[in-house]
Amino acid sequence: MSGSSLGRLFVVSNFGESHGPAIGCVVDGCPPGLPLTEADLQADLDRRKPGTSRHVTQRQEADQVEILSGVFEGVTTGAPIGLLIRNQDQRSKDYGNIMDTFRPGHADYTYWHKYGIRDYRGGGRSSARMTAPMVAAGAIAKKWLTSKLGIEIRGCMTQIGEVDIPFSTWDDVHTNPFFAPNNGKVAELEAYMDTLRKSGDSCGAGLRVQATGVPVGLGSPLYDKLDADIAHAMMSINAVKGVEIGAGFACIAQKGSEHGDEMTPEGFGSNHAGGILGGISTGQNIEVRMAIKPTSSIRLPRKSIDKAGNPIDVETYGRHDPCVGIRATPIAEAMLALVIMDHLLVHRAQCADVQVDTPQIPPGISNY
Amino acid sequence: MSGSSLGRLFVVSNFGESHGPAIGCVVDGCPPGLPLTEADLQADLDRRKPGTSRHVTQRQEADQVEILSGVFEGVTTGAPIGLLIRNQDQRSKDYGNIMDTFRPGHADYTYWHKYGIRDYRGGGRSSARMTAPMVAAGAIAKKWLTSKLGIEIRGCMTQIGEVDIPFSTWDDVHTNPFFAPNNGKVAELEAYMDTLRKSGDSCGAGLRVQATGVPVGLGSPLYDKLDADIAHAMMSINAVKGVEIGAGFACIAQKGSEHGDEMTPEGFGSNHAGGILGGISTGQNIEVRMAIKPTSSIRLPRKSIDKAGNPIDVETYGRHDPCVGIRATPIAEAMLALVIMDHLLVHRAQCADVQVDTPQIPPGISNY
Amino acid sequence: MSGSSLGRLFVVSNFGESHGPAIGCVVDGCPPGLPLTEADLQADLDRRKPGTSRHVTQRQEADQVEILSGVFEGVTTGAPIGLLIRNQDQRSKDYGNIMDTFRPGHADYTYWHKYGIRDYRGGGRSSARMTAPMVAAGAIAKKWLTSKLGIEIRGCMTQIGEVDIPFSTWDDVHTNPFFAPNNGKVAELEAYMDTLRKSGDSCGAGLRVQATGVPVGLGSPLYDKLDADIAHAMMSINAVKGVEIGAGFACIAQKGSEHGDEMTPEGFGSNHAGGILGGISTGQNIEVRMAIKPTSSIRLPRKSIDKAGNPIDVETYGRHDPCVGIRATPIAEAMLALVIMDHLLVHRAQCADVQVDTPQIPPGISNY
Amino acid sequence: MSGSSLGRLFVVSNFGESHGPAIGCVVDGCPPGLPLTEADLQADLDRRKPGTSRHVTQRQEADQVEILSGVFEGVTTGAPIGLLIRNQDQRSKDYGNIMDTFRPGHADYTYWHKYGIRDYRGGGRSSARMTAPMVAAGAIAKKWLTSKLGIEIRGCMTQIGEVDIPFSTWDDVHTNPFFAPNNGKVAELEAYMDTLRKSGDSCGAGLRVQATGVPVGLGSPLYDKLDADIAHAMMSINAVKGVEIGAGFACIAQKGSEHGDEMTPEGFGSNHAGGILGGISTGQNIEVRMAIKPTSSIRLPRKSIDKAGNPIDVETYGRHDPCVGIRATPIAEAMLALVIMDHLLVHRAQCADVQVDTPQIPPGISNY
Repeated sequence: MSGSSLGRLFVVSNFGESHGPAIGCVVDGCPPGLPLTEADLQADLDRRKPGTSRHVTQRQEADQVEILSGVFEGVTTGAPIGLLIRNQDQRSKDYGNIMDTFRPGHADYTYWHKYGIRDYRGGGRSSARMTAPMVAAGAIAKKWLTSKLGIEIRGCMTQIGEVDIPFSTWDDVHTNPFFAPNNGKVAELEAYMDTLRKSGDSCGAGLRVQATGVPVGLGSPLYDKLDADIAHAMMSINAVKGVEIGAGFACIAQKGSEHGDEMTPEGFGSNHAGGILGGISTGQNIEVRMAIKPTSSIRLPRKSIDKAGNPIDVETYGRHDPCVGIRATPIAEAMLALVIMDHLLVHRAQCADVQVDTPQIPPGISNY
Repeated sequence: MSGSSLGRLFVVSNFGESHGPAIGCVVDGCPPGLPLTEADLQADLDRRKPGTSRHVTQRQEADQVEILSGVFEGVTTGAPIGLLIRNQDQRSKDYGNIMDTFRPGHADYTYWHKYGIRDYRGGGRSSARMTAPMVAAGAIAKKWLTSKLGIEIRGCMTQIGEVDIPFSTWDDVHTNPFFAPNNGKVAELEAYMDTLRKSGDSCGAGLRVQATGVPVGLGSPLYDKLDADIAHAMMSINAVKGVEIGAGFACIAQKGSEHGDEMTPEGFGSNHAGGILGGISTGQNIEVRMAIKPTSSIRLPRKSIDKAGNPIDVETYGRHDPCVGIRATPIAEAMLALVIMDHLLVHRAQCADVQVDTPQIPPGISNY
Repeated sequence: MSGSSLGRLFVVSNFGESHGPAIGCVVDGCPPGLPLTEADLQADLDRRKPGTSRHVTQRQEADQVEILSGVFEGVTTGAPIGLLIRNQDQRSKDYGNIMDTFRPGHADYTYWHKYGIRDYRGGGRSSARMTAPMVAAGAIAKKWLTSKLGIEIRGCMTQIGEVDIPFSTWDDVHTNPFFAPNNGKVAELEAYMDTLRKSGDSCGAGLRVQATGVPVGLGSPLYDKLDADIAHAMMSINAVKGVEIGAGFACIAQKGSEHGDEMTPEGFGSNHAGGILGGISTGQNIEVRMAIKPTSSIRLPRKSIDKAGNPIDVETYGRHDPCVGIRATPIAEAMLALVIMDHLLVHRAQCADVQVDTPQIPPGISNY
Repeated sequence: MSGSSLGRLFVVSNFGESHGPAIGCVVDGCPPGLPLTEADLQADLDRRKPGTSRHVTQRQEADQVEILSGVFEGVTTGAPIGLLIRNQDQRSKDYGNIMDTFRPGHADYTYWHKYGIRDYRGGGRSSARMTAPMVAAGAIAKKWLTSKLGIEIRGCMTQIGEVDIPFSTWDDVHTNPFFAPNNGKVAELEAYMDTLRKSGDSCGAGLRVQATGVPVGLGSPLYDKLDADIAHAMMSINAVKGVEIGAGFACIAQKGSEHGDEMTPEGFGSNHAGGILGGISTGQNIEVRMAIKPTSSIRLPRKSIDKAGNPIDVETYGRHDPCVGIRATPIAEAMLALVIMDHLLVHRAQCADVQVDTPQIPPGISNY
């Protein structure tokens, strides 16, 4: 398959550029019988929407999604679901300053050499805007997973720039502009971001996403392991440079006697595995962490070259996120939902007949 | 597609269990005209082979690969290449101790619940042995990439357990049993591993793999980004719990002014991107790091349950690697080769006509 | 992959129902640099549009296509091309007569049992209307094939109901309402269709589609043979019940000495192969024929059952094509273009390096 | 995916050449828990084996299949099943006569131009021998379909050369060397074949394959229609030039009032649809017919060219089938089993939750 689709049985095929007529996707493989309205999708879209606080881009995008197909009388029919989001600001505003230059850290240089042409307006295809259709598609998967299996997916920030955010409670996440699971850190984060914004620079972010209620058995041993597909999905989010499952990089210095999660009839004794063993879900919480690089568009001058290969200095003005990671939480949630949904369908295709007497043990202790 | 294949145009379909008659794979999509012999594949297979030092498992496996098809008079024909490795030790030795128990950190519990049946002999399908066919397949990709494009792929260890291995030189990697790029650390590593082995415990490992000479333009913007597919491939290697591209998790605390790699006619000023921007290769070195968890099979007793759900204690004896990460270097190289090869074919399918006047700049400084 | 996509590298993912808000598709994998406007797509869409003569349905559908993405300043960028066609008539007119009944020959019964829900309005997903986005997608492939390689694709009717249409000239095809390659048969066809229409019955049709200028070498030996993928594409057109390549079913009674196309430096001596040998194009014309079943919606009463399983009589009124095959010519052309385009991209991915000294011989005699 | 795989969830990846070391395939996606031994596969392999009568090639091939993986203690584990068939006759016998020539009707010319290299020994990859692994893979699907759902698949000849074979009874098929469902025609067929063989010429064949007990609901509306995938699978069998579903080409001259199969509580009134409506199974018998071209290897001299492009005469000696179609029956059965199995898995992935009150009606009358 060409490169713009995600999934095998729950397939999202994405299209659009940030300043073209519209962006959207086709969601193919959604089981029939799921009640679905545009409001179900809009909720998550609004969570990732810009302009919700002074700490994110002040661009105004309604990101109103329209369901074009696959839903009849408020219920999914099993036919592909077409989703459309019109781009509002298509003014061919002056992009002359980047039309012929390659911005450091952006895809300008790579697109140009790959395609010989690029829609430079607002980043075109490489714009973070392309995550909006995925958030909408993910909302469909989320609703199915929650309503049919009680699977919940949620995300939060673990770090913004140099400010670590110790986990306190999921309840705080939606009560502050940083998706921070710890309101005690909000004041520090606001100060940090205000300083950063004034400096004209940007910073990276650490993000965590979790799925609870996932049954044991989802995933293939190799190569479509559940964790491998999660890594693929997360790394396919703009600006993500690292992905961890469970203990992640901390496992390097761990001993086997520490890392291997013990099992008792009462449940797992720990969750260093992040809910996945041998590529297959264990029934524990799925735990994923990722690193998001600093926004590449900053006001500070950077060295680069132009299309002719001449050296130039680039200063990027405009309404950019000082930390793109902040709005990435609903995106990561959506991607995790899409991967789990896809594996769930593959699993019931292959293993619908399987029955074992062995009782499943509880998720048990979660050390994340 | 079902879960045992990797790639879109250079496709490896893997089969086998550690104690079945044989393991192997079908490599489909290799271009015609590549000189290929079994010796080309054996070199890398021997690098991952057990029993090469006291620091790895003492199991004896010849891992002799046979080319079954796709090569005629020493040259690839464009037809699928069947690769076969016979399992030598199929003695139905006494696995009674694990037949009815679920070893912590292993896939026993997940396989059982997913399939309702598992080949428990030596880990069956979840055995690290299944990486052998991938190493053979990767050797085909490596030879093509090197002979046609001068792309080189190499890997080394960055950390073993608590011992950090500062990079010194690639020349050292093949002169010590740890794939360590720094012979000055070998004595410390030997002492560490000897102590670990005696303790009956195991440790994790950090691994780095690099590709040089990759042209600008490989990869799709979304979702088959080059970095996303690399993350998928690496995370599909047994025991990998984390993957980083370029700066990886370090990018969280970086400023945009630091992370974004500047460009000049003389080349890139740094390589925090790890050679990939917007999912597409930049022409810099591709830099990947991963975390490998400690071996789950240890002599120390662990709490677990049996098939009936009763609590038990598990002690795993046998000839296990105290650090599975050590032998993972050729595996990671193979996986990276497979991903790059696949993207190269996809790229020339879509962009064979593209020509730009803009000169490509040199890889420049590599800060890895 | 889920079932609504066609192709591997030139992938069309289709969505929509006949009476939903819109229909359309995502065309992923189109090479960059192709000049493309909506007018390029509209030409073929207008050829399949209803209401062009009294011999087809009198429904009025503008079928105006909008390009949503993948084209910048009139040229394809390599990004997926989103295509949108708004449904004009969404009036929830009275479909009460079919809502609870299964029309013979229609997909009502199968959809209902498969999905447990169906959008019964105008056939919903099973409507011939879903071929419109494919015609638009095919027009992109057609333009690429023609402008880059001089490949031409054209179709015509071979038979309508009991009226055989001997091939005379391609020039006639666009000068009569039957896509007939023989104006001498038009009067007979008009009389036949008028009688048929008055009778309230419908008839089937035979259709031929041809590609000229296809280079030798497109296709995979097995299982993605060029002819196998053509058969798949043609059989996926609504109402198609049979597909032939070259001599087709006539080859059963042929002798090997007759069927096997001889080769001379001047060209092939015949084309019983239909331009494909061993799944790979020969450089001859690709010759495909197909059978299209009679329209299932007829005014004559038929026996059927309702949702409760009770016997009923069904009479279908409305503006239906008395012979759906008539408008299928541009659809079959589009499908053939899509398959050839896809194989062309796969071929240059795998065989871009291949060079042989052997001269290609001319297509030679075409006995079709 | 590259071209040597068939299926989406029940995936067969095929490898091998007629005179290489071995042929085989990987069957990925077989559900766990199916009792399976090599004997289960050998039965169908023996039915397609050469040398079973004077009317087929006298080549001796044991075609002994070995199961390499995916089966443990006689039961499938859900892991990929590796199948291996060693080629016995690898003697590099003198193929000098075809090494530099292109045999009319063969893939010699197309392979050479596509790949720039070809394994000319016995047809290499294009040999009918490559169907053996598919027969073995199909036997797995057959056993699953029969044991789990009572689906039966069977095939027979409808015509050999100019001799039509009116259907009499399935019981006769396995009692004569022609897979003829009518022993009354055997004497005529033997005479016809003896004369043909003496003449040094070959003939085509017509073949029918049927599936009974297929539940309603298998298939996707577009583009992975059940009939489209069947057409793809059948056309991917060597030498097949045409495929029909149900009425096939006869539907062209049918009226809608004749073709559309009426439904009553007692069952369908006819089966012109061949058991598929809108790409989805109806619960009737799946009826498929195909045309197989005459063997291209004949003793009679044919005009052709050599690698240098010079005109030559070709006479093909050796032990060739005078009618390759005769041995194709088990192959077509296998392909149909593979397609149905694949769609069954896809169906239960997407529609496992669907429940309707409407009773399914019996298959009813079969007019085939």
